[in-house]
Amino acid sequence: MENHRIETDLLGEKRVPLHVYYGVQTQRALENFDISKQTVSHYPEFVKGLAKTKLAAAKANYELGILPSPIFFAIEKAAKEIIDGALSGEFPIDLMQGGAGTSTNMNANEVIANRALELMGHQKGEYQHCSPNDHVNLSQSTNDAYPTAIKLALFEMNKPLAISLKKTADALRVKAQEFSKVLKMGRTQLQDAVPMTLGQEFDAFAYTLEKEIAVLNNAAQDFLEVNMGATAIGTGLCAVEGFSESCAKHLSTITGENVTKAVNLVEATSDTTGFVAYASVLKKISLKLIKICNDLRLLTSGPRTGLFEINLPPMQPGSSIMPGKVNPVIPEVVNQICYKVIGNELTITMASENAQLQLNVMEPVIAYSLFESIQILQNGLETFVDKCIVGITANEERCKASVLNSIGIVTALNPHIGYKNSTKIAKEALENNTSVYDLVLHYQLLSKEELDKILDPINMLGPGALAQ
Amino acid sequence: MENHRIETDLLGEKRVPLHVYYGVQTQRALENFDISKQTVSHYPEFVKGLAKTKLAAAKANYELGILPSPIFFAIEKAAKEIIDGALSGEFPIDLMQGGAGTSTNMNANEVIANRALELMGHQKGEYQHCSPNDHVNLSQSTNDAYPTAIKLALFEMNKPLAISLKKTADALRVKAQEFSKVLKMGRTQLQDAVPMTLGQEFDAFAYTLEKEIAVLNNAAQDFLEVNMGATAIGTGLCAVEGFSESCAKHLSTITGENVTKAVNLVEATSDTTGFVAYASVLKKISLKLIKICNDLRLLTSGPRTGLFEINLPPMQPGSSIMPGKVNPVIPEVVNQICYKVIGNELTITMASENAQLQLNVMEPVIAYSLFESIQILQNGLETFVDKCIVGITANEERCKASVLNSIGIVTALNPHIGYKNSTKIAKEALENNTSVYDLVLHYQLLSKEELDKILDPINMLGPGALAQ
Amino acid sequence: MENHRIETDLLGEKRVPLHVYYGVQTQRALENFDISKQTVSHYPEFVKGLAKTKLAAAKANYELGILPSPIFFAIEKAAKEIIDGALSGEFPIDLMQGGAGTSTNMNANEVIANRALELMGHQKGEYQHCSPNDHVNLSQSTNDAYPTAIKLALFEMNKPLAISLKKTADALRVKAQEFSKVLKMGRTQLQDAVPMTLGQEFDAFAYTLEKEIAVLNNAAQDFLEVNMGATAIGTGLCAVEGFSESCAKHLSTITGENVTKAVNLVEATSDTTGFVAYASVLKKISLKLIKICNDLRLLTSGPRTGLFEINLPPMQPGSSIMPGKVNPVIPEVVNQICYKVIGNELTITMASENAQLQLNVMEPVIAYSLFESIQILQNGLETFVDKCIVGITANEERCKASVLNSIGIVTALNPHIGYKNSTKIAKEALENNTSVYDLVLHYQLLSKEELDKILDPINMLGPGALAQ
Amino acid sequence: MENHRIETDLLGEKRVPLHVYYGVQTQRALENFDISKQTVSHYPEFVKGLAKTKLAAAKANYELGILPSPIFFAIEKAAKEIIDGALSGEFPIDLMQGGAGTSTNMNANEVIANRALELMGHQKGEYQHCSPNDHVNLSQSTNDAYPTAIKLALFEMNKPLAISLKKTADALRVKAQEFSKVLKMGRTQLQDAVPMTLGQEFDAFAYTLEKEIAVLNNAAQDFLEVNMGATAIGTGLCAVEGFSESCAKHLSTITGENVTKAVNLVEATSDTTGFVAYASVLKKISLKLIKICNDLRLLTSGPRTGLFEINLPPMQPGSSIMPGKVNPVIPEVVNQICYKVIGNELTITMASENAQLQLNVMEPVIAYSLFESIQILQNGLETFVDKCIVGITANEERCKASVLNSIGIVTALNPHIGYKNSTKIAKEALENNTSVYDLVLHYQLLSKEELDKILDPINMLGPGALAQ
Repeated sequence: MENHRIETDLLGEKRVPLHVYYGVQTQRALENFDISKQTVSHYPEFVKGLAKTKLAAAKANYELGILPSPIFFAIEKAAKEIIDGALSGEFPIDLMQGGAGTSTNMNANEVIANRALELMGHQKGEYQHCSPNDHVNLSQSTNDAYPTAIKLALFEMNKPLAISLKKTADALRVKAQEFSKVLKMGRTQLQDAVPMTLGQEFDAFAYTLEKEIAVLNNAAQDFLEVNMGATAIGTGLCAVEGFSESCAKHLSTITGENVTKAVNLVEATSDTTGFVAYASVLKKISLKLIKICNDLRLLTSGPRTGLFEINLPPMQPGSSIMPGKVNPVIPEVVNQICYKVIGNELTITMASENAQLQLNVMEPVIAYSLFESIQILQNGLETFVDKCIVGITANEERCKASVLNSIGIVTALNPHIGYKNSTKIAKEALENNTSVYDLVLHYQLLSKEELDKILDPINMLGPGALAQ
Repeated sequence: MENHRIETDLLGEKRVPLHVYYGVQTQRALENFDISKQTVSHYPEFVKGLAKTKLAAAKANYELGILPSPIFFAIEKAAKEIIDGALSGEFPIDLMQGGAGTSTNMNANEVIANRALELMGHQKGEYQHCSPNDHVNLSQSTNDAYPTAIKLALFEMNKPLAISLKKTADALRVKAQEFSKVLKMGRTQLQDAVPMTLGQEFDAFAYTLEKEIAVLNNAAQDFLEVNMGATAIGTGLCAVEGFSESCAKHLSTITGENVTKAVNLVEATSDTTGFVAYASVLKKISLKLIKICNDLRLLTSGPRTGLFEINLPPMQPGSSIMPGKVNPVIPEVVNQICYKVIGNELTITMASENAQLQLNVMEPVIAYSLFESIQILQNGLETFVDKCIVGITANEERCKASVLNSIGIVTALNPHIGYKNSTKIAKEALENNTSVYDLVLHYQLLSKEELDKILDPINMLGPGALAQ
Repeated sequence: MENHRIETDLLGEKRVPLHVYYGVQTQRALENFDISKQTVSHYPEFVKGLAKTKLAAAKANYELGILPSPIFFAIEKAAKEIIDGALSGEFPIDLMQGGAGTSTNMNANEVIANRALELMGHQKGEYQHCSPNDHVNLSQSTNDAYPTAIKLALFEMNKPLAISLKKTADALRVKAQEFSKVLKMGRTQLQDAVPMTLGQEFDAFAYTLEKEIAVLNNAAQDFLEVNMGATAIGTGLCAVEGFSESCAKHLSTITGENVTKAVNLVEATSDTTGFVAYASVLKKISLKLIKICNDLRLLTSGPRTGLFEINLPPMQPGSSIMPGKVNPVIPEVVNQICYKVIGNELTITMASENAQLQLNVMEPVIAYSLFESIQILQNGLETFVDKCIVGITANEERCKASVLNSIGIVTALNPHIGYKNSTKIAKEALENNTSVYDLVLHYQLLSKEELDKILDPINMLGPGALAQ
Repeated sequence: MENHRIETDLLGEKRVPLHVYYGVQTQRALENFDISKQTVSHYPEFVKGLAKTKLAAAKANYELGILPSPIFFAIEKAAKEIIDGALSGEFPIDLMQGGAGTSTNMNANEVIANRALELMGHQKGEYQHCSPNDHVNLSQSTNDAYPTAIKLALFEMNKPLAISLKKTADALRVKAQEFSKVLKMGRTQLQDAVPMTLGQEFDAFAYTLEKEIAVLNNAAQDFLEVNMGATAIGTGLCAVEGFSESCAKHLSTITGENVTKAVNLVEATSDTTGFVAYASVLKKISLKLIKICNDLRLLTSGPRTGLFEINLPPMQPGSSIMPGKVNPVIPEVVNQICYKVIGNELTITMASENAQLQLNVMEPVIAYSLFESIQILQNGLETFVDKCIVGITANEERCKASVLNSIGIVTALNPHIGYKNSTKIAKEALENNTSVYDLVLHYQLLSKEELDKILDPINMLGPGALAQ
């Protein structure tokens, strides 16, 4: 009994463990939501995002003269401690929660209030000296503070993701250079097409990811537009004049980024499609990763009955029954991560669809899903680079043999003997299992010299291919 | 001016072309909804479903004594004409419409009323003798008549789809038998695994589709449970006692199927998840088709640089630039159909999600999407069989060579020399480009006689494989 | 150094902590896959499913005379201990893994082998006495053992889910009875329609979920068809004749369910659409739950500016800024759970789409997503019942007033004065803000006696509505 | 017999109707693909896109000296005729096709070649004078020409869509101004929150769409980067040096836009995620439209038992059974359009996922789905504005009453009496059905003067709300 303190809210009294910094509303949320077992504490950047938001609000309130100095200084110190990593275990609420994030917002308000009380020499729960609602939440509502904290967290989590994406592109580019002289057949529709280099293939992988880095960072940039000052529905009721601007200014200082106030606060309070847009970018990146991984798995297929143009580094025995089998486990897990990211995008889409009037109450599942997507995607990229890409080697001889042996090189003759003649040659080569080269000579369509020049694979790779 | 007649409704007067059978509300809908250009007339089974519904309702009303004989007989004849294919062009409304299908229901009411008036010797529009609302729609609401008509249409459209699915499975089975002696390597994770026959591979294709026929028909069976008699919200207001049962009875006679009344009419009136369930079955079938088509495209890849175990019949030149190229165009189009079916399933999911209180107003897009999915899937299956499956041939020699050349056959040695020894053999075979056979003899792990027996591919195919 | 033992596999030596029961391949997987932080151990039913599979295989092998008694008895005991809950922490691998589950299968093989060794008086790692591959995995491959274990886990996890679903339906039915006399207006398209009872509304909720219990259990039933004996690709290589049947028989005994052998083992080894079918059922249930929760949130909207026909039990203060606000937090969290379940269904769809040739390597993410969906859905249902449904109360007076005040009751006049007259009355009532009742009398369309009878709401509820 | 001409290709001879401009390959495609009944001709912008692509290629080839003058001039004239709308019926192939668009590309090649032949005084089919492959398709492949034509079409189709989107935003803004003085209660989580104006609500609608215009146009901008000169796989085989740049230059002149050459042609040839990105923008816009339409339907709910704050213009009688009912049919159809657009986005996602090696053969279904999405979305927006938004009116009295009657206004007291006191007042007001105003006075928490000022709704709307 003495290990608890009693706190009170709209619904009445409730016991809270004495040692914790959170209060009655967190306690209720703990009892109400036991869904995913994934807590706010699980994502440190989210905890820090909450503290940054509260810190900026306190600074704005103080600046505007509505928060007394001693309370402000205590709140400031408490928030800064959390930003520095303290009290990270005091956010035990399930990320999956009803109430549009009120529980999480109150969790932050309560932890900061109680730590502030402690710093001021009071007991936890003596909210008359520093109240979660009247002081920590001053000029705010869940409906502005909660999405702002999510956005700050996402912006931070995006940074290492972008770095991992760049690292992946870079690793692929290194391979592109390494393979720049490896001749092979290109394939369209899985059918033999025309020659290229393995370097060109990997260079396309590198480039396609590289392009997304800016797209990703650009999408994250939208998270810097926040609706602080909107309070409940965007009209700013209870927030004093100038709070919104001041708060954005302080958030800029705290984060070192250019945080701005949303243009239309009413719109910003119910609209969550910025999260969808970011999730769609993660989906787009995932589609590109799936393509790369599928290609790697195709190219390494074999060893005896597949394409077998490249080798992936063996990471583990591939089978509990088939001895000697080594499977492309890393691309396989990356594929699966991507399916999860794409599934999450649908979850976020549906949650975003369900805004009603002045709010979208479904924000918690949006945050939950985006946090997960970023985390597994980043882990996947790091794994992909370190345990797969850097160790890829080419089966150069096999690649080259496929070019010499191919019918697709007939395409290079089009400008010289026309599509119709080329078609005839190709058809006969395939049917009689002969070579294009021999047939062209046989029909005296070109001289040997011309033919040797045209069919030199080097000349089929496009301008400057081998120099890249 | 004289080419029009004037009709009136809640919103006032409106001119309707003199020659058409539809009336004022259809006219309004024509003006309100110009979205997809896909009309009700586009799907004859839907037009017939509407007529069957109206016919059954008229019979029930007549039986219950609330519809006068002459009007009933005229309505009956008009409805039967439509069921027989007449007036199919009189349903010009866009399938994509607001109003939960009221426009389509009124379209049917108006066409039948005007045709009935004509049959009774009256002019179109003289609704005092036979009214779209009071007579044709008697005891009904859009909220029961419209979904019932959709369900009848879907049930009918499902029949040829199921037949096409069976035809596909049968065609694959024929190939399975044809290829029952073609030895080849099986692959897991695109890596060489252990031997099998091409027949086993095609037999799995056949079986996996075959299984779905019953699943599909079973899902369609749910369409025979209808909510006629529910009227506006399921309480049956305006429908006389016994109407619901009588209507189901007459629908059974008209369709030749066992049509039943929904157990809970209130539930049945707002719930559309039966459509989702059917759409999910179409999705499941699509996933299986995608897998089959992907496999066919992999197996026919080449001709020189791919697996090239089978040949698909050439349907058209494969490239505007690469002479002699023939692509697997039929599996490719089947894949794309399947993506559309899966996209439609999401559309239907979202529409179904948006039921509110006593109705789901989003039924039109559900119908629109299901009609499309069934149609393109059926067209795709017919195309797949006729233009692809029946013409597939095996490259028997190549298939066989891959087995003899493989390392995967080492798996068969596990029970004899253990996983660890087998692993060593496999590793060495791969590294030194030698054969498993030679290495086992070299290390004297087994006698030549034992080895020949174990490595006979016939013994690796499973019990009775070649006899299938 | 002495705290480790050395184990060896295809890729060479590796140190494994001395005290753990898992071995070299688990160790590699730990290092390879650090993605989601959700481990196999996180789902006890999955660990048990693995042990049940291994136990059944051992029994079959023993029965068929290919597993020596002492080894069998040790394996049997080890497996049973795990089924009873022991060693649950020995499955530390990330559920998100490449390799089609080989790591998880080997994890089980290694833990059981080492525990069996211990039981036989050997040291961990002395695999010559009991080998993960040659004994525990005997007659099996990852490609049959892993999906079988997943299916056994899902079958078990489905049981409490079905119970929670029934509990939800039952709780709603209790409310339906409690509200069976509460008159209210039904609404279609959110527009006033015709009268009903709140009991009818809740009865529809109860019925719609109730129907899904059988659908859910039916879908789970498919998990009892397993491909044990398929080994690598379905041909049964390395499994002795009769293993498949014997294994199914033993699985039946172990689980107390009727486990059967898949009809076509080749098909069963690459097909994962049974998981999709189950996921689609979870989606369907989710759609129904979303509808119910949306309706509850609509019906409780207010208190002053919404429908406010019902009260949900207040679970927590609703706002950090708006005093006295209480929000429908429980339906809100249920909605979000459902979006996640629907997103997971897409993940599973995409994973299932990516089967290739003889295997679908994407099974791990399928399992991961299904486990999550079942768990959060079950938690959600329990929360929904306990913290919301049982405490719902009706605002009876307000409900009743809405009926008396409505225009929609004019519908009941259709059979008596015709749709056209009714339309006129409705229009005038709305425009002049008068009542339907007064207008009918004013125009002398019906006598007061007739009118009173027709407009008695009791007569508008459908046969036997109030008796339910 | 004499009504046909004989043409030949790789697969042999084929009869083609004498009067048509298309040739043998189009004829084959007609027979191969009978899937969706939606033809290339159905989308005039696509036909024009093909002609523009062919025109630019011809100009580049002519400029580079590889296309003889007379042939060039004939091709140029033919292409320009098509751009001007001629021969639009000569593209009868199903948009859903295998072969990565080869059929559509050849359709364009054939029509232009035959029209050019005609212009040069030859007979159709005399391809020795102007060949579909050697002249019209010169320096091109399907793999560059087809996606380029799609992109040009999408870029053009996007223009009217963006205009319709702007028109929608503008119409909503007009309403925002019209309603700028209409006081009402805001709602969060469907629960009464704090006051706002109806103007603020509509202003948020206007703003949220307005923001997307630039996003939409920006996404379309990517369509101006084309891979002409890539030929089969991006290496440019068969295209002369400088073709790519010249072609982009001519496309710029033809379209009046800044068309550029893709940076990495290999990447550009297999990557289709630009289409996904655009589809995701359409999805995002759809989510916003769904929200707006849902809100409108909520706000107009009633007339007697809903929120009924606004009136939508009545477009048609709302029910076949409920007289006088008028439903929000236009927002309802817009919702459904949006579900279709979102379903299409998934189709496009799945198609895009299935790129393999040097090509994504699934482009046709991507084009098909995007064309449909743009068309129905644009039709929907036009309908939305003309038949709904412009006619919306406010129920001003009802809106105002909800504010005066509300408890939510207590929020405005927070800064004056604290959250805790406010909570007490709110609770008592709700329980005793009294007003906040009276209770504050009763408890002497504020003077009447203070209270009147604080509770003046004007002061609750945020800075400058009424002046907007």
